[in-house]
Amino acid sequence: MKKLIDAVDDVVLDALRGMAAAHPSLRVDLDERIIARADAPRPGKVGLVSGGGSGHEPLHGGFVGYGMLDAACPGEVFTSPVPDQILAATNAVSGGAGVVHIIKNYTGDVLNFQMAAELAGDDDIEVVPVMIDDDVAVQDSTFTAGRRGTGATLFAEKTAGALAEAGGSLSEVAAVATEVNERTRSFGVALTACTVPAAGRPTFDLGEDEIELGIGIHGEPGRERTRLRTASEIVDVALSAIDDDMPLSGSEVLVMVNGMGGTPLMELYAAYAAVADWLSGHGATVGRRLVGNYVTSLDMAGCMISVCRLTPRLAELWDAPVETPGLRWGR
Amino acid sequence: MKKLIDAVDDVVLDALRGMAAAHPSLRVDLDERIIARADAPRPGKVGLVSGGGSGHEPLHGGFVGYGMLDAACPGEVFTSPVPDQILAATNAVSGGAGVVHIIKNYTGDVLNFQMAAELAGDDDIEVVPVMIDDDVAVQDSTFTAGRRGTGATLFAEKTAGALAEAGGSLSEVAAVATEVNERTRSFGVALTACTVPAAGRPTFDLGEDEIELGIGIHGEPGRERTRLRTASEIVDVALSAIDDDMPLSGSEVLVMVNGMGGTPLMELYAAYAAVADWLSGHGATVGRRLVGNYVTSLDMAGCMISVCRLTPRLAELWDAPVETPGLRWGR
Repeated sequence: MKKLIDAVDDVVLDALRGMAAAHPSLRVDLDERIIARADAPRPGKVGLVSGGGSGHEPLHGGFVGYGMLDAACPGEVFTSPVPDQILAATNAVSGGAGVVHIIKNYTGDVLNFQMAAELAGDDDIEVVPVMIDDDVAVQDSTFTAGRRGTGATLFAEKTAGALAEAGGSLSEVAAVATEVNERTRSFGVALTACTVPAAGRPTFDLGEDEIELGIGIHGEPGRERTRLRTASEIVDVALSAIDDDMPLSGSEVLVMVNGMGGTPLMELYAAYAAVADWLSGHGATVGRRLVGNYVTSLDMAGCMISVCRLTPRLAELWDAPVETPGLRWGR
Repeated sequence: MKKLIDAVDDVVLDALRGMAAAHPSLRVDLDERIIARADAPRPGKVGLVSGGGSGHEPLHGGFVGYGMLDAACPGEVFTSPVPDQILAATNAVSGGAGVVHIIKNYTGDVLNFQMAAELAGDDDIEVVPVMIDDDVAVQDSTFTAGRRGTGATLFAEKTAGALAEAGGSLSEVAAVATEVNERTRSFGVALTACTVPAAGRPTFDLGEDEIELGIGIHGEPGRERTRLRTASEIVDVALSAIDDDMPLSGSEVLVMVNGMGGTPLMELYAAYAAVADWLSGHGATVGRRLVGNYVTSLDMAGCMISVCRLTPRLAELWDAPVETPGLRWGR
């Protein structure tokens, strides 16, 4: 295993130290292991907290900032954050208007966020959880009952963050995150496995000519292991799976071609060309788009495609200013 | 070889098609293979053109936009753009105030940009070339006489772009790019090789426990092949090499921890923590910083560290608004 790290056990903490040093707009608590906006809590503003295992950067810590998350709590690599950590993040951003938890559907995350919400309730902080489960690849998976939460997390964090910034109420902010999740579907494909530092070897084996269709962001098995295919064929598999589940024809969509961490940006753009062709050939209009590494799986090669059927209001929330390390457009 | 591509020969064109579809702020000419700002040429504004082999994305095409480049011309992967292509880019952005060419020091790039500048001169476009040669690792290398051009390219494109946007003259814009190059040093380390699509196999062999200190962005040999080291040790090698060449103590610096394409962002932040510690321990102050994948080498794992000794004016130009696909902060 080759990693740019000091020690396997310290990598998450060292990365947090790096985040703290690199981004004065963030307040990183190394003891509690939370990343919060420097100006949190904002009185009267609904707080927005997310979190999950590390190794998916920039998700979630890189999405803390104006117009998106108020705080993120990173667990160890591919490991849920603990309830006390989620509680600390919730407390750190509570401005009296309640806090929304955005939770990717993995059993550990769901349980720990639930426990944290109960503890926050004891402190008179009202918490509304929103579960993200957009991955159409499989119904249940290694760490999940039901569908896995993947790319819709970013869409929900961005739009709910915009609404919270604009003064939306607790129920309104939670409702828009829920709506985005319901209108989004994702499908991922792995060309290679990734290597968790503590494990020291790839999370699964893929042959030289094999790819995994429907991969999870921790390397969980997908629908099918198959021979290597072209980018256009991979895009067709992914978008067909999405379209089967949520017909896209006639819709204006927000689409993300997301790198899993190890695929060159040049290739992601080549894949996006195929995505744009596919969508226009199937009667969908691309209203907004994002190409790059946003919800990664360490050094995995491959991509995930996420499609959200926009409404005018969701497009407006998407366009609203955001200033985070990982996503940024101007005020 | 596993690549997310359709055909080896089409990957650059397909990526350009993807750029065109993804970024309405850009005008991509698929025939000439140039990426220009949609509003180019801007009358009276100095044009800023860069280019080089593909495979380093977001450099250069991803840095076209407000406050940075006016156009980029991507060659085939790791291959210089041809003179006609550079000429077309120069013509596309010529607003009557002259054009600055920012050229990474690789023999093919230098020759082809020189030829394009002569052709542009025949068309009465005044071109001033600025050569970037910031890599301290080696004096000459596989594709280079003298030092290689790497991370300083981004710094020069950003600051010169800001000055051009603010109405700087041809000589002023060229001078600031030159100044940034003179004040910047870089050093890269590879944990793995990268694979050029047309070659189909890694550009060089690195053992399971080996790394290459002083790697070039095309995989050119560096100073030494050695056993795998920790992030802190790698950072010490890189910053010591930079400091030996350009003493950093007492300076306020702009520092970039740049991923080569295949290293997780989590690890880049861990490396940045070591960089921040090293610099403060050696009497330098970090004034500005950038952590992420900006000047990549396809899927190579590893990082490059670039340090620029700031002046108040350079810091101001760095802070000026920029709106490109690869680098963006608000107006």
